[in-house]
Amino acid sequence: MSSEKFELDGQFIEKKALKYEGKAKQVFATNNADVLWVHYMDQVTALNGKLKEDFPEKGHFNNLISNLLFDYLTQSGIANHWLANISETDQLVKRVDIIPIEVVTRNYASGHFVSRFDVKPMMPLTPTVQEFYYKSDALDDPFMNDSQILALKLATKEELTDLRIYARQVNEKLVALFKNIGITLVDFKLEFGRTADHQILLADEISPDTMRLVDQSTGESLDKDVFRKHQGDLRVGYQEVLNRLEQFLNQ
Amino acid sequence: MSSEKFELDGQFIEKKALKYEGKAKQVFATNNADVLWVHYMDQVTALNGKLKEDFPEKGHFNNLISNLLFDYLTQSGIANHWLANISETDQLVKRVDIIPIEVVTRNYASGHFVSRFDVKPMMPLTPTVQEFYYKSDALDDPFMNDSQILALKLATKEELTDLRIYARQVNEKLVALFKNIGITLVDFKLEFGRTADHQILLADEISPDTMRLVDQSTGESLDKDVFRKHQGDLRVGYQEVLNRLEQFLNQ
Repeated sequence: MSSEKFELDGQFIEKKALKYEGKAKQVFATNNADVLWVHYMDQVTALNGKLKEDFPEKGHFNNLISNLLFDYLTQSGIANHWLANISETDQLVKRVDIIPIEVVTRNYASGHFVSRFDVKPMMPLTPTVQEFYYKSDALDDPFMNDSQILALKLATKEELTDLRIYARQVNEKLVALFKNIGITLVDFKLEFGRTADHQILLADEISPDTMRLVDQSTGESLDKDVFRKHQGDLRVGYQEVLNRLEQFLNQ
Repeated sequence: MSSEKFELDGQFIEKKALKYEGKAKQVFATNNADVLWVHYMDQVTALNGKLKEDFPEKGHFNNLISNLLFDYLTQSGIANHWLANISETDQLVKRVDIIPIEVVTRNYASGHFVSRFDVKPMMPLTPTVQEFYYKSDALDDPFMNDSQILALKLATKEELTDLRIYARQVNEKLVALFKNIGITLVDFKLEFGRTADHQILLADEISPDTMRLVDQSTGESLDKDVFRKHQGDLRVGYQEVLNRLEQFLNQ
């Protein structure tokens, strides 16, 4: 429990008990049943938790980048869970029931896609590839197709259509944004949730933990791949992404 | 080369050079560019060739079962490559360019599906699950979704729609047939090919090597799982399937 408070639309939101702790975030209840308090941790993990390390300030970068991107997507008309940035590491979001499906969008071949299909890294993918993964640590997040998802009742056919449409819209907006700041959006993972009134909202975070970003002039990774591949301090890239986004979006 | 001949629609078809040898079949050219000569071998493999053994007569069972099933599907109006049964182990088929996608249909959970999603074996799958796998031994036949197939140009969107429709039709026909002989069709793999004039035909074989079949009264496997799981001589089940099909279809 904590006595931390934040004023949102004239109402005081008070941080309550920890509801959930993931690999990089803590989610707290608040005095408002429709609002959650998210704290971005300094921990980074990869390979479903097999690699783990603490990086002071990492939570700060992810929170601020995620805030900027959700704010940008809100202005671009994409419904999402983001409510307010409340500190360097914390934000308020709408409570949703997370749909247990990770939606991956790939503009260029990278990571698993390269090894799985033996294609050239950074090969452009046309049409853009969209993949669904079952969000289950116990099962190691297996890749799924629509008929498997329907047979296992993880989502409805209509929801899968919506997830595809929303992911495509988010991709278009983010590709355009990153292009403006000299960065290629290689691929990224989104999560969505259902509100009490059955609306689907973009949820979770959008940060260099969940995207692959490549500097267009140097070809360097500006994301968690730096950690996955032991290529140095990932915070250098995260800081660079934050700086360019702040400069472009706040101009 | 061989001097074996067979009369097909008044024309002599002569077996020529070996074109391709798979894990359980040899495919020979003939004197007719549109006709191939398929020989079913007595070899059985599993786990992408890691398990391998010879079973005298296995080729005979698979050839005769495949013949009966293709003949039945032809009479049910499903376009396929089968032309004629020419011996206990050999058949003639139309030449097609095989689409490099294996189409798996699952009526009940079994095999990979059970371990991948931690569900109960033989759980009914509604809707029926359809899966595409990239036919590539080098890549270990990876599971794929539509957007991956399109981005890698392995098939067109229209072809994927056709593959789904044809696989559903084949499933309906085969489920009904096997029900009549006291067998549950758990799952099966199909392959399709394109003719020179762009028609899609059901191809490859349909046998207990490519289907999971369970005896409805005893619950016993009548397919290659007997070999995969070291449960005895797979030919007992293959013989049983052949006997029941012959009795029912030739009555």
